[in-house]
Amino acid sequence: MSSVASQALSNRQDAAWRQRAAKVVPGGMTGHLNAASLPAGYPQFFERGEGCRVWDVDGNAYIDFMCSWGPNLLGHHRPEVDAAAQRQQALGDCLNGPTPRFVELAERFVARSAHADWVLFQKNGTDATTVSLMVARAATGKRKVLVATKAYHGADPWCTPVPAGVTSEDRAHLIQYTYNDVASLEAAADAAGNDLAAIVCAAFKHDLGIDQALPTPEFARRARELCDKAGAALILDEVRAGFRVHAGGSWETVGVRPDLSAWSKSIANGYALAAVTGVDALREAATRIYTTGSFWSGGVAMAAGLATLEIADAADVVGHVQRMGQRLRDGIEAQAASHGTPVRQTGPAALPLILFDDDPGFDKGAVFTVEALRRGVYMHPKHNMFLSLAHTEHDIDLALQATDPAFAAVAARFGRR
Amino acid sequence: MSSVASQALSNRQDAAWRQRAAKVVPGGMTGHLNAASLPAGYPQFFERGEGCRVWDVDGNAYIDFMCSWGPNLLGHHRPEVDAAAQRQQALGDCLNGPTPRFVELAERFVARSAHADWVLFQKNGTDATTVSLMVARAATGKRKVLVATKAYHGADPWCTPVPAGVTSEDRAHLIQYTYNDVASLEAAADAAGNDLAAIVCAAFKHDLGIDQALPTPEFARRARELCDKAGAALILDEVRAGFRVHAGGSWETVGVRPDLSAWSKSIANGYALAAVTGVDALREAATRIYTTGSFWSGGVAMAAGLATLEIADAADVVGHVQRMGQRLRDGIEAQAASHGTPVRQTGPAALPLILFDDDPGFDKGAVFTVEALRRGVYMHPKHNMFLSLAHTEHDIDLALQATDPAFAAVAARFGRR
Repeated sequence: MSSVASQALSNRQDAAWRQRAAKVVPGGMTGHLNAASLPAGYPQFFERGEGCRVWDVDGNAYIDFMCSWGPNLLGHHRPEVDAAAQRQQALGDCLNGPTPRFVELAERFVARSAHADWVLFQKNGTDATTVSLMVARAATGKRKVLVATKAYHGADPWCTPVPAGVTSEDRAHLIQYTYNDVASLEAAADAAGNDLAAIVCAAFKHDLGIDQALPTPEFARRARELCDKAGAALILDEVRAGFRVHAGGSWETVGVRPDLSAWSKSIANGYALAAVTGVDALREAATRIYTTGSFWSGGVAMAAGLATLEIADAADVVGHVQRMGQRLRDGIEAQAASHGTPVRQTGPAALPLILFDDDPGFDKGAVFTVEALRRGVYMHPKHNMFLSLAHTEHDIDLALQATDPAFAAVAARFGRR
Repeated sequence: MSSVASQALSNRQDAAWRQRAAKVVPGGMTGHLNAASLPAGYPQFFERGEGCRVWDVDGNAYIDFMCSWGPNLLGHHRPEVDAAAQRQQALGDCLNGPTPRFVELAERFVARSAHADWVLFQKNGTDATTVSLMVARAATGKRKVLVATKAYHGADPWCTPVPAGVTSEDRAHLIQYTYNDVASLEAAADAAGNDLAAIVCAAFKHDLGIDQALPTPEFARRARELCDKAGAALILDEVRAGFRVHAGGSWETVGVRPDLSAWSKSIANGYALAAVTGVDALREAATRIYTTGSFWSGGVAMAAGLATLEIADAADVVGHVQRMGQRLRDGIEAQAASHGTPVRQTGPAALPLILFDDDPGFDKGAVFTVEALRRGVYMHPKHNMFLSLAHTEHDIDLALQATDPAFAAVAARFGRR
C-alpha cells in the first residue's frame, strides 16, 4: 500500500476497545492522549511503534509526527537504548537505593549543560516543574512565581489548564506575564514586590492552538536581569523542547542561562523519567526540600537515558530534527501556496506547528489532518508536533505526498485564497 | 558464606559512588532512599535483585525486608511479570495513545475491588493522592480536606513532610485529625463546616518511627458516616498497604468502602505505575478534572501490572505475606524475650515494624539493624517493612538466625531488662 493512497481506515478494533474503556475509565480516556480532543477519525488505541512509525490497534500504520507527544526522540525501538534498558532490567530496576546509573546520568547532565551543577530525578514533567518551584522557594524564602499566560507547565493543581478540582489558594502566588513581552514581565515582577521566588519560562512559546514563538533575546535577558536583581531563580521549562532545540539547553540559543531547568519527555526515549538541573547557588536549597517517588531512582529508565543522551549528542539529534523539520516546513509552505490555502508555521522547525489562516475553530486543520491521517500520516491540527532522529528525508517526502492531497481537500471544502 | 556469619561488609564501591554522587546530586542523594536516614553501615547504591534478595554495589547480598519500600510484591524478576513487560516492550510502550493493556488493567481493578467502578492511571503515589483530592473537590465544589496528623500521603507541596519550599496556601484547606480517634475526626469535620470535600485515611496508621495501628471499625465507620452526611468523598490511601492487607482493598477488613482509593508501589511489581479507583458517583467529576503525564499511558508498566495482579490474586499474596510476616514476628518476639530486649511489633504482620522499648532515638534499633545487616539481612530501624511472595519460610528462618545475635548485641550494649 502506498503511503499516499487514501484509505478508508479500519477502526473496528479501536471502536471495540473504546467501548470497553468507556465502562472503566472516566470519559473513556483522559489527559493529553484523549482522542476526543482530535477530529473524528483519529484512533484512540495503539499497539506498536518502530522508528518514526506507529500502528494503531487496527493495524493502520502512520508516519508519526507526534513522537508520543515528545518522548520518542531517537525513534521507537532504538536498539542501543532498548539493549541498555534490558541489561539493567536483568540486574534490577527498583531497589532499596539507586543504582550506579543514577550517578552516571547525573554526571552526563552536568557535563552537557553549562548551567547544570547538580541533578534531581523524577518521573513526570509536572514533578520537575513542581520541584523547581520548591527549590526556588526554599532558596529565596519567597513565594511569588511569574508564569506566562496560557503556558502549560504541567497538570498539578498549581498549573493544570483546567480549573476543576483546583482551589484559588493553589494559585495564590502566581503572577502572569505575556511571553516575549518585556513590559508585561517587568510589571509582573513589580507586582511581586519583595516576594519574588522565581520566573518560569517555557523554552519557547508553545501554547495550544496559537502561533509559537522563539524567545527574543531581549525578553530572555530581561528575565535573567529581573531574577538577578531580586535574588530570584530563573526556571526554564524544557519538558517539551529539551534535546530538540539545543543540546546544552534551549536558551543557549539566546545566550541566557537559567538557574533551574525542568526536563522530561525525551530524556530516555520513552522510558519514564524527569529531571531538574540547577546551579550551585541552589544546591543547598535542593538538599533541604523533600520530594520523592517510589520509582524515581529506578535504574532501567536511567540506563535508557544514558544511552539516549549518548546517541543524541553523538548523532547531533538537534541538527537532524531541525533539518527534517525544515524540509517538512518547506514542503508544506510550497503546497499551501500552490493550493491557495495559506498556513502559518511557527516556532522551531524541529517542533512544527501548522495553523491555517482564517481558521479560528481549526476546521481547516481538521480536514487537513484527517486527510493526511487517511494517507498514513499522523499529524496534529493545533498542537506542536515533534521530529525524531528516525525521520529520514524519504519519510518527510512520503509525508508530503500525503499532505498535498490533504491541502487539496481543504481547498475543495473551504475555497482557495 | 552462611547467612548468619557476621561480615565486615565491603563498601569500597559504595564509597566511590557516594563520592561521585556528592558532586552532582544535592546532598549525594535525596528522598526516602537516602541512606543518610539510616544508621552508618547501610549501603547507598544497589546493583541487583532476585526474588527476596538484593545485592549492593559491593556484591553484598541481603535477605530484603524493604522490598524497594513496597513495590517488590512478588519478588524481583518474577518471570511472568518480566515476560509480559518484555512482550509489550517489543511492541511499544509510550505511543500516541494508550495500548489495550490500559483497558485490560482498568477492567481488572474494577473486577477485583467492590468499590472500584472506574480507574485513572498515573506514575507516582503522590499523583494518585493528588488526583484523588482533585476529583473530590471537583465533585463536591468544596475545599476542606481532613488528613491525619503525621500521616504520609506523598511529597507534593500539599503533603510533603518537610516544609521547605512550601507556602502556607499549599495547605490552606487541610484540617488535621488523629488516626483512630473518632472525637478528633468529628471535631475536624465540624471545623470544615459546610466546606468538606474529603476525608483522607491511610489504609492503616503507618507513620514513621511510631507504633503502627490497624483502623478500628468505629473509626472507619465514622469516617464513612461523616462523608455521607456532608456529601464528601472518603479517600483511602492504599499506596503503601495496597495488595498486602486485603486483595479487594484494605478496608474490606473493617467492612467500610471508600469512594476513592489511591494505589501505587506494588501494582506492577516494581514497574512504575499508580492508579486512582473510584465509585460511579464520582465518575463525572473524574472526567472534568485535567491531569496527565507523558508516560502515564505507557503499555509496559500496565502489562506488568496485569501479570502482577493476576499472580497476586491467584497465589493469595495477601495470605502468604501475612503468614511470612507472622512467622518473622513470632520469631522476633521470642528472641526479644530471650535476650531481655523487649520490642513492640505493630500493624499488619505483612508490613512489619519493630521498635524497641525505651528507644526514643532509635539507638537500639540502629545497633539491631546494623548487626542484622552485617549478617545479610536488610531491615529498617524505624519505618515499616514489607514482605513479598518470594519470601519463603526458609528465608524467614535464615533471617531469624541473623536477628538473634543482633538482639544479643543490643543486650550487650544497652543491657537486659
